[in-house]
Amino acid sequence: MTDTQSTKRAKLEPKYELLYWPGMPGRGEYVRLALEAAGVPYKDTTNESKEGISSLLGIIGRDSVTAPDEPPVLAPPILRVLDSPLLISQTPNILLYLGDHENLAPTDGDKYLVHQYALTALDLGSEAHNVHHPIGISLFYEDQKPESLRFAKEFRGLRIPKFFGYFDKIVKYNRSKYPESNYLVGEKISYADTTVWQVVDGVSHAFPKKIEELRKEKEFEALFGWFDGLKGEEWLKGYLESKRRLPYALGIFRHYEELDVDQ
Amino acid sequence: MTDTQSTKRAKLEPKYELLYWPGMPGRGEYVRLALEAAGVPYKDTTNESKEGISSLLGIIGRDSVTAPDEPPVLAPPILRVLDSPLLISQTPNILLYLGDHENLAPTDGDKYLVHQYALTALDLGSEAHNVHHPIGISLFYEDQKPESLRFAKEFRGLRIPKFFGYFDKIVKYNRSKYPESNYLVGEKISYADTTVWQVVDGVSHAFPKKIEELRKEKEFEALFGWFDGLKGEEWLKGYLESKRRLPYALGIFRHYEELDVDQ
Repeated sequence: MTDTQSTKRAKLEPKYELLYWPGMPGRGEYVRLALEAAGVPYKDTTNESKEGISSLLGIIGRDSVTAPDEPPVLAPPILRVLDSPLLISQTPNILLYLGDHENLAPTDGDKYLVHQYALTALDLGSEAHNVHHPIGISLFYEDQKPESLRFAKEFRGLRIPKFFGYFDKIVKYNRSKYPESNYLVGEKISYADTTVWQVVDGVSHAFPKKIEELRKEKEFEALFGWFDGLKGEEWLKGYLESKRRLPYALGIFRHYEELDVDQ
Repeated sequence: MTDTQSTKRAKLEPKYELLYWPGMPGRGEYVRLALEAAGVPYKDTTNESKEGISSLLGIIGRDSVTAPDEPPVLAPPILRVLDSPLLISQTPNILLYLGDHENLAPTDGDKYLVHQYALTALDLGSEAHNVHHPIGISLFYEDQKPESLRFAKEFRGLRIPKFFGYFDKIVKYNRSKYPESNYLVGEKISYADTTVWQVVDGVSHAFPKKIEELRKEKEFEALFGWFDGLKGEEWLKGYLESKRRLPYALGIFRHYEELDVDQ
């Protein structure tokens, strides 16, 4: 898809409504990337209008008395399937739905491989969040900084290499079966690709020095090769240059210089 | 299913092999409970023999060179579907598979509701683990105790009520549609029931004073009513009394008295 097509596409009648905290990629980004890869038009409600946030808060705050026809939702991201009663939450669950309905996952046993890889990437994303919030999400980073510094050392030294080593293996595993493929499962893009890509991009934003070091060591060359290759695809290039891609902010992936180097 | 049936069942030809760290319920328990609810025979390899652990370590340690036909696995639990090439990891993914293949989830849009509820319960389970390991999983609890005490205060005061309030809502939501049902989605047991049940049981083990207090306040009566009701079902009673149910140990749900009360 060219950039012009990508811009046009966003103006078509939306098929889905994404509800997430405005002004940051966050967990909403896993959903956005899947929708973008599928080339399906969607409404990003809280970012498209200032009043959008009230739709989100309304859904989170209600109970079975105020909304007897829709299941309770604990937290965003939320995907509303327009022209249907479906209101889906929990990031891996939204991705599962999009895999099934937007051709972003195989229909055979490999669908569980896609889910497995995406779940593992989301786990690393959650740990990257816990680095700056090890004690509690109701507190500011500044109120848990000594704990963050301890966690960051473990995260950079053990966790990033463990997960990146795993992602590197899955690139090699698929390539051993499909030598021409630059995707993680089979020969087509899936939400495993978009999710692992976003986590590697987010961790690279938060810990640029650590990632630069890993790239130089060439230990995870298959992974970085896959990552750079996907980034070069027209649909992703077009999206990353569009206004729909929000800059990293105070979300999951945050860059604090002191967390990226030994103190 | 009676207790005698339950004992007999475990001796039938296994259909699945569960691979998890031995000697504790841990994340393996979410899989065990789903298999028990489905009444399907399985092999719990690491708990059934001392040599079982080497099967698990072999799978985690290998790469695409040593096992070109099986996808890489980061961590247990792992479910091997016997008489098939499938090797599935990531707890929610294993549950998804069992939902699809062992009649533990609906086949319509409500399957996403089951996954959503199970994922949310697993999130609370992970947070309960992070209470005693806020800084790093490579460290002992004793080496991160001050941080644990801070996290525990937030967990007891904000996180348990938030999640339990949500689970209470989902019990009420399903009951508003199916007044006679004591399940979370529709009128049949699903892996949402087994997973939320295990998390409520685990949190009750780790924070008994906090849960006693919540039970007395009667704020989450629907949830505790559902929990106690499920515990009274024959299959679960039989399982809980069997040797297959392992006592809580140094896994996700740990009871440290100092984390259960204000210091």
